[in-house]
Amino acid sequence: MDYELLNKISSPKDLNKIKDLDKLCREIRYKIIETVSINGGHLSSNLGAVELTVALHSVFNNDNDAIVWDVGHQSYTHKIITGRIDEMNTLRKEGGISGFTNLNESPYDMFTSGHSSTSISAALGLAISKNINDDEGHVVAVIGDGALTGGLAYEGLNNAGRFNKNFTVVLNDNKMSISKNVGAIARYLSKARTIPSYMKAKNTIESILDKTPIIGSNLKNLIIRFKSFVKRFFYNSTLFEDMGFIYYGPIDGHNINELKSAFKVAKSIDRPVLIHVITTKGKGYKFAEKNPKVFHGLSGFEIHTGSMSKKNIGFSDIFGEEICDIASKNPKICAITAAMVSGTNLTKFSYKHKKRFFDVGIAEEHAVTFAGGLSRGGLIPVFAVYSSFLQRSYDQIIHDCSLQGFNMILAIDRAGLIGDDGETHQGIFDVPFLNTIPNVTIFAPSYFNELRLMLNKAVYDCRGIVALRYPKGKEYFRPKEFEYTGNTFDIYGKSHDKDVLIVTYGRTFSFACQARNKLVKYGKIVSIMKLNVIKPIDPESIKIAKEFSNVLFFEEGIKSGSVSEKFGSKLLESEFSGKYTITAIEDEFVKHASVESQLRKYSLDSDGIVNKVLMELSVRNEKEIRYNSF
Amino acid sequence: MDYELLNKISSPKDLNKIKDLDKLCREIRYKIIETVSINGGHLSSNLGAVELTVALHSVFNNDNDAIVWDVGHQSYTHKIITGRIDEMNTLRKEGGISGFTNLNESPYDMFTSGHSSTSISAALGLAISKNINDDEGHVVAVIGDGALTGGLAYEGLNNAGRFNKNFTVVLNDNKMSISKNVGAIARYLSKARTIPSYMKAKNTIESILDKTPIIGSNLKNLIIRFKSFVKRFFYNSTLFEDMGFIYYGPIDGHNINELKSAFKVAKSIDRPVLIHVITTKGKGYKFAEKNPKVFHGLSGFEIHTGSMSKKNIGFSDIFGEEICDIASKNPKICAITAAMVSGTNLTKFSYKHKKRFFDVGIAEEHAVTFAGGLSRGGLIPVFAVYSSFLQRSYDQIIHDCSLQGFNMILAIDRAGLIGDDGETHQGIFDVPFLNTIPNVTIFAPSYFNELRLMLNKAVYDCRGIVALRYPKGKEYFRPKEFEYTGNTFDIYGKSHDKDVLIVTYGRTFSFACQARNKLVKYGKIVSIMKLNVIKPIDPESIKIAKEFSNVLFFEEGIKSGSVSEKFGSKLLESEFSGKYTITAIEDEFVKHASVESQLRKYSLDSDGIVNKVLMELSVRNEKEIRYNSF
Repeated sequence: MDYELLNKISSPKDLNKIKDLDKLCREIRYKIIETVSINGGHLSSNLGAVELTVALHSVFNNDNDAIVWDVGHQSYTHKIITGRIDEMNTLRKEGGISGFTNLNESPYDMFTSGHSSTSISAALGLAISKNINDDEGHVVAVIGDGALTGGLAYEGLNNAGRFNKNFTVVLNDNKMSISKNVGAIARYLSKARTIPSYMKAKNTIESILDKTPIIGSNLKNLIIRFKSFVKRFFYNSTLFEDMGFIYYGPIDGHNINELKSAFKVAKSIDRPVLIHVITTKGKGYKFAEKNPKVFHGLSGFEIHTGSMSKKNIGFSDIFGEEICDIASKNPKICAITAAMVSGTNLTKFSYKHKKRFFDVGIAEEHAVTFAGGLSRGGLIPVFAVYSSFLQRSYDQIIHDCSLQGFNMILAIDRAGLIGDDGETHQGIFDVPFLNTIPNVTIFAPSYFNELRLMLNKAVYDCRGIVALRYPKGKEYFRPKEFEYTGNTFDIYGKSHDKDVLIVTYGRTFSFACQARNKLVKYGKIVSIMKLNVIKPIDPESIKIAKEFSNVLFFEEGIKSGSVSEKFGSKLLESEFSGKYTITAIEDEFVKHASVESQLRKYSLDSDGIVNKVLMELSVRNEKEIRYNSF
Repeated sequence: MDYELLNKISSPKDLNKIKDLDKLCREIRYKIIETVSINGGHLSSNLGAVELTVALHSVFNNDNDAIVWDVGHQSYTHKIITGRIDEMNTLRKEGGISGFTNLNESPYDMFTSGHSSTSISAALGLAISKNINDDEGHVVAVIGDGALTGGLAYEGLNNAGRFNKNFTVVLNDNKMSISKNVGAIARYLSKARTIPSYMKAKNTIESILDKTPIIGSNLKNLIIRFKSFVKRFFYNSTLFEDMGFIYYGPIDGHNINELKSAFKVAKSIDRPVLIHVITTKGKGYKFAEKNPKVFHGLSGFEIHTGSMSKKNIGFSDIFGEEICDIASKNPKICAITAAMVSGTNLTKFSYKHKKRFFDVGIAEEHAVTFAGGLSRGGLIPVFAVYSSFLQRSYDQIIHDCSLQGFNMILAIDRAGLIGDDGETHQGIFDVPFLNTIPNVTIFAPSYFNELRLMLNKAVYDCRGIVALRYPKGKEYFRPKEFEYTGNTFDIYGKSHDKDVLIVTYGRTFSFACQARNKLVKYGKIVSIMKLNVIKPIDPESIKIAKEFSNVLFFEEGIKSGSVSEKFGSKLLESEFSGKYTITAIEDEFVKHASVESQLRKYSLDSDGIVNKVLMELSVRNEKEIRYNSF
């Protein structure tokens, strides 16, 4: 496709020059399909928000206007028309633009996103700062119906609802939450959708009521008695109006003129306004319209057929299979997901054990407290969740579960570096934050079979909160002669000289084993301690590590507060007098790139490990040489 | 008072024997006043919930029924009538009963509480587990209007609203949130209260509409055209009904018969029901009714006059004064609280800088993301919050602030051990969890003047997220000759032999100084390193510590993931070869007791520090002796 109109757009101000906005939208749509087919990314949500975005930027196009995108997985059109069209081919690639909004990328990206339900709170902060600073400009938050299931969005609405200046929330209702049937809000929105042109209906009733002579004594009395009551319900009758917003909708989210009219109304009102927009996920690409979930987040496809290369089996698959099997035998097992049924591979569980399956919406806090209630009721809840989203549940794990001594399982998916989704999605905090919580045991499987065995162990042998953390995707290299013993740690490659010990866990063990093979070529035999349980640390592992001259800990996660620091501290407390070094992620966020590249950057791949070991030994040798030369 | 009726109650089942429940309530009320006047605790909220609790336990009194109390600061009546009347004099005392519900205390306490907004999620978990286990019994969640401002409560409602079995939420509306004017929900409830007997009104309208012949063509057309529309609004017209609940109320929360009727209705319906109950905080005790906030949480008073002993000046006071002064000079300073205006001492700020003050309700997640928005808008938000409640904001600090590089200040009150509020309120996690987050600087003032200086430093000299953590209450011992230098750490009591170094921060420095004085009597001179900035650790502090033979770290917080572990690990990495020991709180929760007793228990008072040092030296001496005897 030649992007005839699109090439004329270098900033949102150029939208005013375009007459045929529908054509522009078709071009944008093709650009999105083309990009995602090659680079991967979010397709359905982006295709649904094309007209919405064009209309928003047409109406709110002063330099001081700010649009805050929730999650950011619908922001490609926004990126395209805010000067990033030429960078779309770098989307989600190392050094390229992010798959979400990112404030370091463009002055048009007001807030970095990736996690859900943050936009209203952030936008309110912006709006109030404009008010305090006497700055011009309007602020708009764009939030999906799925994101509205998160408590943070509600807290945002509750606080925004009393703001007495212009403030717009666009509810991009793509029936995402309803298709998943998560909660009462979804049902509510589904009803609201069936009332066409609600705003007009209300106005009509109101004016007729005011003009009509009232006849019929019962009805007359009724209306007189309940005048204010009735008025209240006509004036203030939707959930959003109860929350202090003027409600306007539903609007056809693919009709640019209708959208622009609605946004102009919103812009003109000196109060918070919620515009309810109905969009179709995957709009304009038949395969995505038919299977919006399949085309939600993906890693590339063939445009003309919609076909995708078959995914390799990953840890999520193993987890989903195994927990489903365990639940068939054990009637106490329940599974919980926060809107990630297929991502965490609970699909089979969801129909096989329907009564014991709970998709709570994007509500990680509730998920954990609810799990606490299930545990109190004698069940064994398993909450399957991405590492970075579990950050939302920190207090609930402490206060509603650990403190109460409850039994439950946290199946932590996407643990460690996750590749092209980037900074917001890295699973690098779960170890350090769970590390701080009493009554938590953390298992770190390195291979599929370990995940299976550890999951069974968690169900049948453990008490308290048991976390299993496993990476996104496949398993890596495994030495033939290695077998998980079921112990808290395993030693691989015993060496007699007790010189170098590599300590690690999870998939890093694979790279450590590869490094060990490479080091043999340098005439160096190293031992590897693979921690299977990373919290609590088995004191026996410290005793064994103490006997080595050099201990090197490799950890695929944030260093501060993590296992490697604890291990070092324990070594020192037990009077270890050898050398200790940690290789982990220092205080920083990890940008999008391939997992392999990210591992390389932090010296967590096999070459990185080899280099660290050699460097350590050469430093020591130098010292020894210096010492010997006296 | 002789508790004539109350003495007949040893379990809720005994309520049926009592004819004069109003008299019983008077006795309970007196018992509560008597208890709190001596032991301290929550008064206003408990006095407001007496009839509510008696009525609940009268209606839901099967062994299988479960009542889940939100926060638990209204549960004294519940404690009294569930067999704990004789233990009320031990309330909040070491070894005595907790000031909140606690499941280790009684089979009637279904869920341990202390943090807000958890009850609906927990109760739903219980109800669903009954459903799965085919157990009998009803489940009730009791939640205040204040707690309803928390997103977790909304997530709970959203999920409970689609439950198709009996489930009751009692909204104990004591106009707490409205008095604080926090958000749209408060305004909504305030409107709902003005419609007496709403349920009846609805029924009447509905039946009249069904029976009335419709006259008048305009009106007739209107009603025909909008029949389903109108129906919808009469059937499904409150916010709670939009959320899937049958709404019933408002009910007079001090009228036992009315309450019992409502609860009986709720019990009989096979769907989620919300009963809106209006109560008066402090009911029945004139001083508390007049000043419900003053009598919310307190440490004792004189019953007949309502007078309390004057509080000593604490860290909160210093913070409140200083931030108010800074804001007078700096127009960019904003203050945020999550429903703790007076607790964090922002009262003066709230009226002096009204436009820049935000009480967001019990919404710590929103507070932080909103602060992110303010920071993005060029302001300097200061979020004043209790340590244990900040646990709620972990993800928001990471994702919405740290990742975005925003500048803001977290004023963390009640950091460290907090005494009689017990397990749920200990401020022992903030250091380890903030430790895991990039772009965070943590200051730990030991004295009032340091808090002032560090707060100014945070505003004027620092970037990123700056946390200041300070304990509840007063400042402790301070050596005359000690002065904070403004550096990242200070050394007090330099010794020439470089034998023993105590490392610590915050108020523990006071006890370390006292310990130092005591150790002089044992002929031992120790040095003390006081960390002023505990994140990041200044490498210079490691260099200096390395020169000592014995380093002992004392930390008033959870050990796992904390500064002392990091310090140990860094010492080891820099090839320290001396002895290192950590004294901190191991993986456990700290029960209620006086702060002094809690400090003693964990060897964090001066005697504890003395003993640890002497023990360390004697162990070493023994070893030396053994070695020398060869």
